[in-house]
Amino acid sequence: MPTNDTGPTNDPGSLIRELQEALGASNVLHEPEDLVVYEYDATIERSLPDVVVFPATAEDVAAAVRLAVKYDLPVVPRGSGTGLSGGAVPIKGGILIVMTRMNRILEIDADNRVAVVQPGVINLHLQNALAEYGLLYAPDPSSQRVCTIGGNIANNSGGPHTLAHGSTVNHILGLEVVLPDGRIVRLGGRVPDAPGVDLRGLFVGSEGTLGIVTEATLRLVRQAPATRTLLAIFDSVAAASEAVSTVIRRGVIPVAMEMLDQEIIRIVEPRIHAGYPLDAGAVLLIEVEGVPDGVAADSAVVEQACRDTGAREVRSADEAEERERLWEGRKAAIGAIGGAAPAFYLLDGVVPRTKLPEVMTQVLELCREYGFACGNVFHAGDGNLHPNIMFDPTIPGATERVLELGGAIMRACVDAGGSVTGEHGIGLEKRSYMEWVFSEADLDAQRSVREAFGPADRFNPCKVLPGGHGCASGHASEVMQHLGAGSYV
Amino acid sequence: MPTNDTGPTNDPGSLIRELQEALGASNVLHEPEDLVVYEYDATIERSLPDVVVFPATAEDVAAAVRLAVKYDLPVVPRGSGTGLSGGAVPIKGGILIVMTRMNRILEIDADNRVAVVQPGVINLHLQNALAEYGLLYAPDPSSQRVCTIGGNIANNSGGPHTLAHGSTVNHILGLEVVLPDGRIVRLGGRVPDAPGVDLRGLFVGSEGTLGIVTEATLRLVRQAPATRTLLAIFDSVAAASEAVSTVIRRGVIPVAMEMLDQEIIRIVEPRIHAGYPLDAGAVLLIEVEGVPDGVAADSAVVEQACRDTGAREVRSADEAEERERLWEGRKAAIGAIGGAAPAFYLLDGVVPRTKLPEVMTQVLELCREYGFACGNVFHAGDGNLHPNIMFDPTIPGATERVLELGGAIMRACVDAGGSVTGEHGIGLEKRSYMEWVFSEADLDAQRSVREAFGPADRFNPCKVLPGGHGCASGHASEVMQHLGAGSYV
Repeated sequence: MPTNDTGPTNDPGSLIRELQEALGASNVLHEPEDLVVYEYDATIERSLPDVVVFPATAEDVAAAVRLAVKYDLPVVPRGSGTGLSGGAVPIKGGILIVMTRMNRILEIDADNRVAVVQPGVINLHLQNALAEYGLLYAPDPSSQRVCTIGGNIANNSGGPHTLAHGSTVNHILGLEVVLPDGRIVRLGGRVPDAPGVDLRGLFVGSEGTLGIVTEATLRLVRQAPATRTLLAIFDSVAAASEAVSTVIRRGVIPVAMEMLDQEIIRIVEPRIHAGYPLDAGAVLLIEVEGVPDGVAADSAVVEQACRDTGAREVRSADEAEERERLWEGRKAAIGAIGGAAPAFYLLDGVVPRTKLPEVMTQVLELCREYGFACGNVFHAGDGNLHPNIMFDPTIPGATERVLELGGAIMRACVDAGGSVTGEHGIGLEKRSYMEWVFSEADLDAQRSVREAFGPADRFNPCKVLPGGHGCASGHASEVMQHLGAGSYV
Repeated sequence: MPTNDTGPTNDPGSLIRELQEALGASNVLHEPEDLVVYEYDATIERSLPDVVVFPATAEDVAAAVRLAVKYDLPVVPRGSGTGLSGGAVPIKGGILIVMTRMNRILEIDADNRVAVVQPGVINLHLQNALAEYGLLYAPDPSSQRVCTIGGNIANNSGGPHTLAHGSTVNHILGLEVVLPDGRIVRLGGRVPDAPGVDLRGLFVGSEGTLGIVTEATLRLVRQAPATRTLLAIFDSVAAASEAVSTVIRRGVIPVAMEMLDQEIIRIVEPRIHAGYPLDAGAVLLIEVEGVPDGVAADSAVVEQACRDTGAREVRSADEAEERERLWEGRKAAIGAIGGAAPAFYLLDGVVPRTKLPEVMTQVLELCREYGFACGNVFHAGDGNLHPNIMFDPTIPGATERVLELGGAIMRACVDAGGSVTGEHGIGLEKRSYMEWVFSEADLDAQRSVREAFGPADRFNPCKVLPGGHGCASGHASEVMQHLGAGSYV
């Protein structure tokens, strides 16, 4: 475990006492055995916080932040810890502010399609509460059973339905946030496109580097009166990719277009029995929604486009239960990979939709070259790749080679005119890749804005932007040092 | 005309010479008779620049900005000058950078639905170029025949079709901008949701206070295969407002829902002969699009909702020419008001959709109280009001009372949970209203971000945020001083 090079300059005992006085003793964890479960998120990064607090109000958050300033400690916000880029890992220690107690839905205004929630609300709990009004909150990450709205905001999360509805930033009207100096401010408002400098949009996706969200006003959408799910079976990823472009070229934007490749099908099907043929090269899960006649018309376009690009079979389902079954394999895919390999490394890249066949070919070639099995399950309609590299971390050098392969895949995405994250964020893992996408002047502009909120080493230090005082360079070789692993090969 | 209290500290002659050397003599205007056409936009604000330049490249823009720094002069960017909040008026003089020469469409990538344009491209020229690919750029301000993409970005412009597609910020993937220190940087990218601090979203709607856009990468949408326009005729604005809520509650989001009230109908119809009945209390123009069967199904829902809320008649048109005729009255409304009154003041407020009937009643009462005729033509689906207050500016005190009435209407919007601009921006006119929507701490956070880009008195000083060195307070009474008008009554 790395030592914290910006650790408390005062007596840590008095920090704990002051936090306990401000938030209540039961809402402050500081014993090593309690801290250890807060050293990681869903990545391979690890680092212990100095203390963990569980605020109940914005004022609690502000009090903890003011104490962090007083004791000169970093602050790292955390939701459910499902992040996939190390964003919630307290790499320089400090105060970890866990938002899970702030989990109330404060208001649902069905007529104006607005909900007001605390950041610790679980995405799926909100969806369930909205369902009785016939409404939904569009962003639906695959981790929606666990992840929080606050975490979704920090990462500008997407999901299968981002294709039609857009990612989180399109669904946040207003935010209450605590800034790095402890002030509580409101950004945006209750109606769209609030006036002035758009700090609301800036905050969404800022991964806890600018402040901590303590309340969010969300834009809701209505559940469609009719939905149809289609499962199209192809002999190759290239043919399925071509189908994706063809559907959209012919004028239908499905609410979701998800691809699973052969490797994933062979892992998922024996476990889930979703009915995916084991010899298929790829399957596409496509969902269209609208009024019933519109759904029928759109489905016909989708089906024809799939057949024209070589689908050997297209199944469809209208009823909720049948549709659920087709989706089952997609939703369980990541978990199934976890059961099929000792470890896996889930990547997140994005390319222009027309580059999918070319880049997918490169991804599979790179994996073969490095000698790792790789399953692909992804938001094909958005050009958002999610290769899962399976490996055994007990084999010396394997983790390093996986990270190197991950870098090579990200490079392929950038070279195709794409980018290094579609929805998982930059966090700790991809900071060095930012230089592939942005010039030094571009990054300086981002740094200036970050520093307008407070010193860069206060809120989630060493995240998102490369460099930073006392941070590793962000290259995978240095990430390895945090892992206590051997040299980079 | 106000004197420029931060005018050049060096010899203005040498500034002109240096600008001429950098941009070419024919691209620099400095004679008073040339400057006078650049002192205003579409508002009642006026102020002369010291010099006007017409860059052809990002490097030209950067050179002009560096000279502004050298001579300590403000910089104000301008497109076609159609702004409705005084954003392009150089209230403290300085260098006005007019972007109209940078008017090339650099690339249309139809398969990936991306276009790359210079900021001076006229919105409608782009639409025409895209039409041959069956594509469109969704933001369609009513001024689209004249306004530029750069101006649309500065103001996060909307339009009738914002209801379904969202305002400009949803359609900008990447930007090249010149910062207040003359550096050229790229924000965002070519694929959605670029990593890092989202400066792309921050820039959209920043009204020229953070930098100058020199290239934009736009997200395109496909023209729908079928479109139907419906015209529903109501006895009152309240009934038409109820229809708007009802349509959306029943699950159809039309691409546009525009309302014209009786005052507007009586001005427009005799001039345009669009077929709006002169005794109608309000008409709603509703457009639905999609595949043909979907359009038929959605239209049936819309028509029934209108009848259920008291529409006396619902007409519909499928063919382009017929649809164009129904739209004619809406598109010509603002111009027709110009012909019907010596002057008019066009307001821009927004309220939650369900508050429309209540706030519209207040707006009409306030206008009666102040003794001004007021016509309303607006994006009803978005809750985005556009009252047009008609007045004669040669009557002493009339302009002041109009501004006071405008303030009272904005206050009513804020009190109903709305905001002080839907799409026209804050500019010079509405700075003081920002304090109705945001706390001092909220505004300080916006100021910090603005200052992260450069000193607040360099790029479009005295715009958007209240206060600022050497700026009037932004209250209408002080705006009056700029107009050389009498005291505020």
